[in-house]
Amino acid sequence: MRLSRFLLPVLKETPADAQIVSHRLMLRAGLIRQEAAGIYAWLPLGLKVLRKIEQIVREEQNRAGAIEILMPTLQPADLWRESGRYDAYGKEMLRITDRHKRDLLYGPTNEEMVTAIFRNYCKSYKDLPKNLYHIQWKFRDEIRPRFGVMRGREFLMKDAYSFDLDEASARAAYNRMFIAYLNTFARMGLKAVPMRADTGPIGGDLSHEFIILAETGESEVFCDSQLIDMGAPGPEVDFDGDLQPLVDQRTALYAATEEMHDAARFEAETPADRRLSARGIEVGHIFYFGTKYSAPMKAHVTHPDGQDRPVHMGSYGVGVSRLMGAIIEAHHDDNGIIWPEAVAPFGAGIINLKAGDPDTDAACAQAYEALSLAGLEPLLDDTPERPGAKFATMDLIGLPWQLVIGPRGIKEGKVELKRRATAEREELSLADAVARIIAGRTP
Amino acid sequence: MRLSRFLLPVLKETPADAQIVSHRLMLRAGLIRQEAAGIYAWLPLGLKVLRKIEQIVREEQNRAGAIEILMPTLQPADLWRESGRYDAYGKEMLRITDRHKRDLLYGPTNEEMVTAIFRNYCKSYKDLPKNLYHIQWKFRDEIRPRFGVMRGREFLMKDAYSFDLDEASARAAYNRMFIAYLNTFARMGLKAVPMRADTGPIGGDLSHEFIILAETGESEVFCDSQLIDMGAPGPEVDFDGDLQPLVDQRTALYAATEEMHDAARFEAETPADRRLSARGIEVGHIFYFGTKYSAPMKAHVTHPDGQDRPVHMGSYGVGVSRLMGAIIEAHHDDNGIIWPEAVAPFGAGIINLKAGDPDTDAACAQAYEALSLAGLEPLLDDTPERPGAKFATMDLIGLPWQLVIGPRGIKEGKVELKRRATAEREELSLADAVARIIAGRTP
Repeated sequence: MRLSRFLLPVLKETPADAQIVSHRLMLRAGLIRQEAAGIYAWLPLGLKVLRKIEQIVREEQNRAGAIEILMPTLQPADLWRESGRYDAYGKEMLRITDRHKRDLLYGPTNEEMVTAIFRNYCKSYKDLPKNLYHIQWKFRDEIRPRFGVMRGREFLMKDAYSFDLDEASARAAYNRMFIAYLNTFARMGLKAVPMRADTGPIGGDLSHEFIILAETGESEVFCDSQLIDMGAPGPEVDFDGDLQPLVDQRTALYAATEEMHDAARFEAETPADRRLSARGIEVGHIFYFGTKYSAPMKAHVTHPDGQDRPVHMGSYGVGVSRLMGAIIEAHHDDNGIIWPEAVAPFGAGIINLKAGDPDTDAACAQAYEALSLAGLEPLLDDTPERPGAKFATMDLIGLPWQLVIGPRGIKEGKVELKRRATAEREELSLADAVARIIAGRTP
Repeated sequence: MRLSRFLLPVLKETPADAQIVSHRLMLRAGLIRQEAAGIYAWLPLGLKVLRKIEQIVREEQNRAGAIEILMPTLQPADLWRESGRYDAYGKEMLRITDRHKRDLLYGPTNEEMVTAIFRNYCKSYKDLPKNLYHIQWKFRDEIRPRFGVMRGREFLMKDAYSFDLDEASARAAYNRMFIAYLNTFARMGLKAVPMRADTGPIGGDLSHEFIILAETGESEVFCDSQLIDMGAPGPEVDFDGDLQPLVDQRTALYAATEEMHDAARFEAETPADRRLSARGIEVGHIFYFGTKYSAPMKAHVTHPDGQDRPVHMGSYGVGVSRLMGAIIEAHHDDNGIIWPEAVAPFGAGIINLKAGDPDTDAACAQAYEALSLAGLEPLLDDTPERPGAKFATMDLIGLPWQLVIGPRGIKEGKVELKRRATAEREELSLADAVARIIAGRTP
């Protein structure tokens, strides 16, 4: 992409009303624009990152055997009357009346609708296990939206729903999502810690939140510090196998959100030098809730013994749009964002120090073509801005590599290559610089 | 994908309330499920097609120089009060009040919001031309939703908005979308005819609808039959060049929707044997409307002479979800859907005639792996269903190729390959069949 044809409205000033660094940087780097309280438009650069985050989430859901569907944003109220949640949900649910005076709502979550889909098509134990997910915009009418996309009202969520014959197989489904989540967040450069959590309005008796530690986190969390660097099992995990040992390895160590925290147990189970109390951002939340929805909504399947019984369910959420904020909280410095390669909106930035100078333009075009061919999708700053402003913008938007090309260097056959994360700079030939960027890419 | 792990709820009976063939087939093939009047969930197979359609639309927008953003589904009413459309739009607009009693609406289109985004960031002729598009769910509260996704209430639309200095450059922007649309629809196997159209509630004085001829079309159209097979310019078009001759080639021949039809002109301009009157489905609609929104909303740019003037705008819509219905109307037979390869949910179907038989299972696995490696993404029917039902399902869901593998054939070293579109069948070795499918793919 040539910057002269793109829309990248960076701000020099720090927006006054943005309280946390990710919100400030998302506004300053031209990723989002607020359209109403807690409702954002995604500008071109922000949308590219959002799509990369979404695609990682999708790939890891698919790998774990979940099947993608897409439910609509609006739902009929009658569906929520079946589960009893229509009246129970409170003011966070956006209630709507259509021209025929029928009650609709903007889905804050989809347990009811997916249960109705399941019961319509799946009637036998032979149809199990099933895990259906979708990645769709949700709305929660937060009383005080804040922190940008961290606590917005219209937000993008991945929500998966598992259906199983009994509690044991439902727990296996829960474990598959538990492991898929570890892999998902690791691919985005995040260290997410699973913590025992409260089930809240979703219900059920088993639940984990996946928490990123960050000073700006909304909730206080307590955990064994060994969990932080434990890493993810990785893509080689056999999702058809027994995942319990991998789950146990994590859940054996103490980790709890504020609501579930038990100070006495924390002290008893965790050596003093490993007792970590910090603030955290919730990026995923998984629940096992048995027959809470399937019983009232009559989502029954026939068991091998010929009896019909309600299926056992779980639900599994990832805050896709919120993740962008969480990634920035974890990866930035005073100059701006430092995107992990897997979610960077462009693979490299090329700075033309003298747009209009034929030799410089030609060298930039050559680099642009070579990087494009290698699939790196570069962003070429071909605008007439002065060098200082171009450097600042490129640091702010945080692409992994910066290739700086100017007339003086070209005379000596040199360009400058800068790695954003470390600020290391090197002078080398254009061909070597391009080769370095291509080689530096994670396969 | 293995069918035993998928969710493919095909119906044997024709749904009574579906009036047109695409609606019937979308329900029967398990592509969609109605959740409320005009509101659908996309089941796994339908979602795969929807994403392929969406991606073709996106690629052709990008090729024509449009920049992707994503605006939210909900919009503040105040924005629509600026343009005067909030009161004018009528009951098709879904109006919503949030917990703080603020007026919101579910966007039926985005002229106002995109104009507000533009005016916030682009102030100079140097920022032009710009074309911003998004692919987002819209809501129009149709009084009588019908024909499945053809006239739904919640629907997926691509809408692009161009911003130019003057009318001449705005017409060049219009031409870029005109040509991009021809290429877009052609890639999906559709013959779309651009027709002079009424501008309706969007406004302006130049507009074309892109129409697919189909008996079940909602509107009557009139055109020179030579337009039907004129074809699209193709991907080699230079979008930086002058596209007027390509546009003129099409607009020189008579083509008009009912509202714009002039019978006398039709007769005068079109030889009698080329006068086609038919029914059509609108799949795209483009508008040039000058300063209709930029003037009241004060989206001004500074011209080279130092003066500020409102930008000239156009908007360009594609009914992404409706396209699925249009494609099925154009591509089906008595047995089901016949997907054009570019939008087929899977590249090929493999039918295991005797799941559980070790040799048959092994041959199926081999075919599955070879086709997967070639990037064809096969669907393997590994269920215990009887052969007749498997054949019927595979015809119904319309994958381009069917590879039928059974114990008897395997003994003779043969499998059966069937091309869905022509029903041609051939017995050949497994390796040859796989090679034939791979070679038959459009590059």
